[in-house]
Amino acid sequence: MTSTELRREHDLLGDYEVPGDVYYGVHTARALENFPITGTPIARYPELIVALACVKLAAARTNHRLGLLSAERTDAIVTACEEIKAGKLHDQFVVDVIQGGAGTSTNMNANEVIANRGLELLGHSRGDYPRLHPLEHVNLGQSTNDVYPTAVKVGLQFAVHRLQLAMTELVSAFAEKAVEFGGHLKMGRTQLQDAVPMTLGQEFGSYAVMVGEDADRLGEALVLISEINLGGTAIGTGLNAHLDYAGLVCEELCAVTELPLVTASNLVEATQDVGAFVQLSGVLKRTAVKLSKICNDLRLLSSGPRAGFGEINLPPVQAGSSIMPGKVNPVIPEVVNQVAFEVVGNDIAISMAAEGGQLQLNAFEPIIAHSLFESLAHLTAACDTLRRRCVVGITANVEHMRSTVDRSIGLVTALNPYIGYEAATRLAADALSTDTDIASLVLDRGLLTPTDLAKILQPENLTRPWRGLTDGAELP
Amino acid sequence: MTSTELRREHDLLGDYEVPGDVYYGVHTARALENFPITGTPIARYPELIVALACVKLAAARTNHRLGLLSAERTDAIVTACEEIKAGKLHDQFVVDVIQGGAGTSTNMNANEVIANRGLELLGHSRGDYPRLHPLEHVNLGQSTNDVYPTAVKVGLQFAVHRLQLAMTELVSAFAEKAVEFGGHLKMGRTQLQDAVPMTLGQEFGSYAVMVGEDADRLGEALVLISEINLGGTAIGTGLNAHLDYAGLVCEELCAVTELPLVTASNLVEATQDVGAFVQLSGVLKRTAVKLSKICNDLRLLSSGPRAGFGEINLPPVQAGSSIMPGKVNPVIPEVVNQVAFEVVGNDIAISMAAEGGQLQLNAFEPIIAHSLFESLAHLTAACDTLRRRCVVGITANVEHMRSTVDRSIGLVTALNPYIGYEAATRLAADALSTDTDIASLVLDRGLLTPTDLAKILQPENLTRPWRGLTDGAELP
Amino acid sequence: MTSTELRREHDLLGDYEVPGDVYYGVHTARALENFPITGTPIARYPELIVALACVKLAAARTNHRLGLLSAERTDAIVTACEEIKAGKLHDQFVVDVIQGGAGTSTNMNANEVIANRGLELLGHSRGDYPRLHPLEHVNLGQSTNDVYPTAVKVGLQFAVHRLQLAMTELVSAFAEKAVEFGGHLKMGRTQLQDAVPMTLGQEFGSYAVMVGEDADRLGEALVLISEINLGGTAIGTGLNAHLDYAGLVCEELCAVTELPLVTASNLVEATQDVGAFVQLSGVLKRTAVKLSKICNDLRLLSSGPRAGFGEINLPPVQAGSSIMPGKVNPVIPEVVNQVAFEVVGNDIAISMAAEGGQLQLNAFEPIIAHSLFESLAHLTAACDTLRRRCVVGITANVEHMRSTVDRSIGLVTALNPYIGYEAATRLAADALSTDTDIASLVLDRGLLTPTDLAKILQPENLTRPWRGLTDGAELP
Amino acid sequence: MTSTELRREHDLLGDYEVPGDVYYGVHTARALENFPITGTPIARYPELIVALACVKLAAARTNHRLGLLSAERTDAIVTACEEIKAGKLHDQFVVDVIQGGAGTSTNMNANEVIANRGLELLGHSRGDYPRLHPLEHVNLGQSTNDVYPTAVKVGLQFAVHRLQLAMTELVSAFAEKAVEFGGHLKMGRTQLQDAVPMTLGQEFGSYAVMVGEDADRLGEALVLISEINLGGTAIGTGLNAHLDYAGLVCEELCAVTELPLVTASNLVEATQDVGAFVQLSGVLKRTAVKLSKICNDLRLLSSGPRAGFGEINLPPVQAGSSIMPGKVNPVIPEVVNQVAFEVVGNDIAISMAAEGGQLQLNAFEPIIAHSLFESLAHLTAACDTLRRRCVVGITANVEHMRSTVDRSIGLVTALNPYIGYEAATRLAADALSTDTDIASLVLDRGLLTPTDLAKILQPENLTRPWRGLTDGAELP
Repeated sequence: MTSTELRREHDLLGDYEVPGDVYYGVHTARALENFPITGTPIARYPELIVALACVKLAAARTNHRLGLLSAERTDAIVTACEEIKAGKLHDQFVVDVIQGGAGTSTNMNANEVIANRGLELLGHSRGDYPRLHPLEHVNLGQSTNDVYPTAVKVGLQFAVHRLQLAMTELVSAFAEKAVEFGGHLKMGRTQLQDAVPMTLGQEFGSYAVMVGEDADRLGEALVLISEINLGGTAIGTGLNAHLDYAGLVCEELCAVTELPLVTASNLVEATQDVGAFVQLSGVLKRTAVKLSKICNDLRLLSSGPRAGFGEINLPPVQAGSSIMPGKVNPVIPEVVNQVAFEVVGNDIAISMAAEGGQLQLNAFEPIIAHSLFESLAHLTAACDTLRRRCVVGITANVEHMRSTVDRSIGLVTALNPYIGYEAATRLAADALSTDTDIASLVLDRGLLTPTDLAKILQPENLTRPWRGLTDGAELP
Repeated sequence: MTSTELRREHDLLGDYEVPGDVYYGVHTARALENFPITGTPIARYPELIVALACVKLAAARTNHRLGLLSAERTDAIVTACEEIKAGKLHDQFVVDVIQGGAGTSTNMNANEVIANRGLELLGHSRGDYPRLHPLEHVNLGQSTNDVYPTAVKVGLQFAVHRLQLAMTELVSAFAEKAVEFGGHLKMGRTQLQDAVPMTLGQEFGSYAVMVGEDADRLGEALVLISEINLGGTAIGTGLNAHLDYAGLVCEELCAVTELPLVTASNLVEATQDVGAFVQLSGVLKRTAVKLSKICNDLRLLSSGPRAGFGEINLPPVQAGSSIMPGKVNPVIPEVVNQVAFEVVGNDIAISMAAEGGQLQLNAFEPIIAHSLFESLAHLTAACDTLRRRCVVGITANVEHMRSTVDRSIGLVTALNPYIGYEAATRLAADALSTDTDIASLVLDRGLLTPTDLAKILQPENLTRPWRGLTDGAELP
Repeated sequence: MTSTELRREHDLLGDYEVPGDVYYGVHTARALENFPITGTPIARYPELIVALACVKLAAARTNHRLGLLSAERTDAIVTACEEIKAGKLHDQFVVDVIQGGAGTSTNMNANEVIANRGLELLGHSRGDYPRLHPLEHVNLGQSTNDVYPTAVKVGLQFAVHRLQLAMTELVSAFAEKAVEFGGHLKMGRTQLQDAVPMTLGQEFGSYAVMVGEDADRLGEALVLISEINLGGTAIGTGLNAHLDYAGLVCEELCAVTELPLVTASNLVEATQDVGAFVQLSGVLKRTAVKLSKICNDLRLLSSGPRAGFGEINLPPVQAGSSIMPGKVNPVIPEVVNQVAFEVVGNDIAISMAAEGGQLQLNAFEPIIAHSLFESLAHLTAACDTLRRRCVVGITANVEHMRSTVDRSIGLVTALNPYIGYEAATRLAADALSTDTDIASLVLDRGLLTPTDLAKILQPENLTRPWRGLTDGAELP
Repeated sequence: MTSTELRREHDLLGDYEVPGDVYYGVHTARALENFPITGTPIARYPELIVALACVKLAAARTNHRLGLLSAERTDAIVTACEEIKAGKLHDQFVVDVIQGGAGTSTNMNANEVIANRGLELLGHSRGDYPRLHPLEHVNLGQSTNDVYPTAVKVGLQFAVHRLQLAMTELVSAFAEKAVEFGGHLKMGRTQLQDAVPMTLGQEFGSYAVMVGEDADRLGEALVLISEINLGGTAIGTGLNAHLDYAGLVCEELCAVTELPLVTASNLVEATQDVGAFVQLSGVLKRTAVKLSKICNDLRLLSSGPRAGFGEINLPPVQAGSSIMPGKVNPVIPEVVNQVAFEVVGNDIAISMAAEGGQLQLNAFEPIIAHSLFESLAHLTAACDTLRRRCVVGITANVEHMRSTVDRSIGLVTALNPYIGYEAATRLAADALSTDTDIASLVLDRGLLTPTDLAKILQPENLTRPWRGLTDGAELP
């Protein structure tokens, strides 16, 4: 059979001819006609395809153990799934990422590709379904309604692990900068107004902590998406699945995925509820929001070069302007900001889809899956790009930062414990109106001795809790 | 009857005793028990209460014209409604702003207050409904499903007009600053990097245009909420409404509200569709987003006083810190930012509520109304506050701005037409690496004569399209 | 001093006269002028006011232990705070829930009320600040930037506990219904199409699990908001706070609040990061989305009474229509839906506010706090109302449900293991086209014996995993 | 030069080797390294690529008319642009749809492809830029900051026109069904409860109106995106653009695009403001929300086949289940719902991007453009699919609908004008509790004569405003 030949298949709507050289069948082909929405096939998310193969493999092994599937058919299914796991046949997963039917078309696509590849392995021709049937054998004891969410969860685990890795590496990059910049004094700012001094190292150290915390939160969200409903079949009651199926298939799926999956305690609930996806999306949104905040800061701190904050320099990675020669822009933080906005938008799409679930199923799981895989892929890319092409190359304008501290009104806060809030307020007002620096004013007015003032204004004393003028000293 | 006495009323659930001194009745009282959600009564939005009175008044007059309501009852209803329009009895509109029932409780609240006040005016006691019945007379020919959305639309018109006024005044304030700052040269910035020069007047002029455009957009959205469905009754088919009712009641409502209302051409559609609210919310979101952007700019331009952009000064309106003496923060722009975030959030609530409408009605109109009235009230307050306590008092740091232009690399862009992009790129790089200014470098290298350079760098030539070195001159 | 007298106070903007009979002072008064946004004072959230009192009390005790505050002043502050904790003076917390200044006005409001009440307790007159100063004594060693987020977190803990309680009670209500409805067979539905049978008890059991899981998620989010930054002062470096302050004040705050609070390990990060709020909001959004889904289901299952699903009856709680006599609507689920939409909207406001944080502080914490307290209060009310006025009174239409199962095509799925998917598909098509029931068709065609068919169609076999036709039997 | 050879180019970062066989150059190549985010090139949106070619073509012609560009270079640029307009070279537009740099990389990509194709046309080799330079000639008098938003607006016009066409066809499909179903009486429902009768034709007629109104709203949004800022160059001041450039280039662009474009009156404002995109997105969200509501209705009305509303049948387009034989699901409405959720999400991403604009530019225009093009493409596909594979094939279950009307309690509303609301309420309660129909009860009790009752219950009288019992009759 050549690629130009057609293969006749059949479903409840009647006969249908699919191209002879494809592994998918009638159900997939109809889905292609029904959902010409984005042009993006589910193969865009390899983690999902691999996860589908894992689920089908685990199901086949389980059915064999239960005496429901012959060794020959089991072997064919398992081998086909192993091939898909290894990255083969992904181009046969063609249904649109946005599809109706609660994932049925994705499940059908998997069933058909595995059956036809299995038939080949058994020496039969594609479409010879009585020998290996997409539904009666590959999908045995299963329903889209338990297979699809389970596969999505497994795929998300893979994708989350990749994001966590990217985040961990970004944490290291920030942490290294925190050490490198540890001694550089600068003005801290609240509400964009000069506040009190800190070190640039403290600033970058915050970013490391911030991103690191989100990696931890992702780990917690993983626990929720480890709970699967395989064995619930159509609505969670387990109709048509063997009594022992749910337990065994989870065991097999843990083995093949090397993930710590568990079967939900209430499968009816687990089949209709998409709360775990909403939670994961919430955490991704949190991550996005924080990355965006950090990138806003990087853009702000590197604003200039001469009419801005000018505290740090981002490494130039491309010419910034088609009209302004020599201009270099913070393009890497900017792209991360935009990914963040997309992730927040995806979270809304997911929330609406979750809210729209009805009775025993949420028909909108495909857009939930699509949005999550997209958010994960883009966040991973954003973290990698931010680290490699921006953070590691950041340099500091040490002298400029130091000079803003020396000239700052904010130094007055450090004098609070010695002269009080009200006196300090007057001092600040005078410094501002006379364009003087705080230190000169203090000395001129004899408010503190030069020695005491110097001690108070020592960088290490300005950037940590108060220890008094002499060790162990109490306030006057 | 004193306040401690009770008045027995009746509905389909049975008897119910309401306090003797209130104007509302059983339906309202049950709603109070059913919806103890926010604690905020609908009277929070006086525009809505006035609008309800207008609708009831127009309906009574129409029913009288159609011979369906006696003169005596009509007069009583009309007078009660006039009182409410004048601001009386608002404290009797007590049902929660978030309520189930698609606005039924709000309509019932109005019917009951008007009936009981009407009864008083007629010399009867409250609750003597056979003489003036909340449903059979005040609500005659009406349904919540046409009364409520109509009243909401009328109320929104009032509220939008107030917002437009506040925006127009804000536009004037920005425009006045644009004139005041017209001659102050400063660096324009793109992507937070120094770009090319402009005047601070141009910057504030942009804000005037921006806000002004949104006032226009609001005017367009008003057209949509001028289309009412009064006369459609329960589902838009007009069941129980007199054939001529819809036309006449619109006439009467236009008269009493002085608004250019029209009856929708398809009342079945108009009764279930909340698109006009979604559109209005979209425009409010747009307004919010722009105000937020402007406030972000104001905070950025006034950052400092010494370690920031320091181009403008916002008027100090309160002490900024409980620990940092003398610190003054941009609290007014900050509060506007927050209102903007709330409005964007409200838009999502409205979108979800709109999406959740089913078949012949959207049961979620109350949250739509609440969110819109809230967004309108807060945006109006935000515009007023921004104008009065911030914009009108802004001052400029003229010399600082000018000095950043002189030192700027961005001046090199103006040389593009004379020396080309590639040569200009090298010049910019050299200026940056040697910490020199562009003008010195150009003269040192003899790239342009002092006269030509001076002409190119004249402020007026830097801030408008290119006219060549001599009038009418072409490029070499 | 009577209420009509004025009290002169002073701040960095100059003199200011506040009403003589209020406990707040100049800073609060200016905030009232600056933020006339919502008209809703922070006292709307009593949990926040109590939390502020707890923080100030803990700080005073700590400062006393450190030898920085005299016993007399400490006692005055502590007593004033105890009064506020007990619910007194809440009417003095008047600043707007939406305010600029990162919470400074809320902190100032607390400082001033406590100082003036403390002065009274000490026998002095209000405003005699040298004896007990709002900033130098009440706010000693503190900054808005550590006090405010800490107080918000403590207040949120109180509010989350209330919501968890309401959710737990709702779980019980659903669980009781699950038992009550345990034996009622009905059609399960996926994608709104008849699927396979289940019991109404299984349906309500799912709701119990769903809500219960969210109560658990809230517990996890609580852990994050137990991490406080008290002692970080202005930007987290701890400037002006005694070296031992952070540790001691956390100890004191745990004692007074009876909450398991911990000090964040990196205070610079903790001062600028609002991730814990974003996470909590994400969980609230998840809760909202699920409650909305459940309410959608309740409305759907009770649709009718004669042209809908008609499976359950919600207790009537008010007349449904001002025009349709006898109509009763699902108003309680509807109000819950609307609260859910509001919570999703609030989550967006919070996300934008979080994203907008800059450098060492997030100036938008007030809108974050407002949105969270609002979401918590409304969700708590919604859960209570849903339980009390809806769930506990739900009844089932047992016979109608059973008859839809008997007539259902979906029964055919149970025959899959015996006759295969393809044969079952034909059977389903025939039943539908000939308007017959599945059982008759099977017997007519002799596909199964009456005994086997009866066994397969036994309710308990239709609603749980497959056990074969004889105990321990395998498929043919 | 073969594909394996490399071409050396140069930019401010130094030398760079690009593949010899590509038309893009160093700037594009660096962008590919910097933005490996989505893997989707801007060529995904052909409307944008064509629009870029139109802008560059118009600019070249304008520069030639101004004497700034030679005839030879102009011809080369124009011909290259014409080729791109005709669909060629789209595979050379390779930069990522999500990119930093405010669109600079997209503009650079266009400049380079046009320059290199132009060089070929002139008989020179690619990269021989002194003869035709991407920046000095193709980009002459332009900046990304005016080119990019202008191209996006032009591209959006093309895309909106396609969506409007799809919507108009969908309107026709609904309108045809409205006619077809014009005589089928059914129960109207409010709040999912049986309300009063209507025809199925009225129901489908509403959908036609609803979608049609949104097509009109899109037309209004088009007006806003007709306002371009070409000629504003870097920040809207027009620096480096010839005095007459802005006017002429708009003329040329209108000619080449056949669109009614106008130059914004304030170019500084127009360069930084993205309000027109926010407005368009708001309208798309509105469209999405309405389509979703309609699809929810279609799914609800077709619920069943036996345990649901069962009023209409959607055409089966694929097997519905991998486990439930014969099940057919509403997969087409479901996919439209999901597109709607995505569009609402995209609107949030756009709002956040808009809010994030700073000073003279919004650096986040690429995500705005991406989100809008995506929303437009998916909505267009969704409308087409909904029409072709669902709406046109819908059939009605006429008898079932009629029987629900006859049995309905809701008929009682039609009796209101004759027996009053309170009496009708009792009648409804009795009918429900005794499981009787309203008509029998009315006759049994002698409330109306059989003739009058029959007249009242005539279908045409139930579905339109009230005309009384005799023509022209008034109420008793």
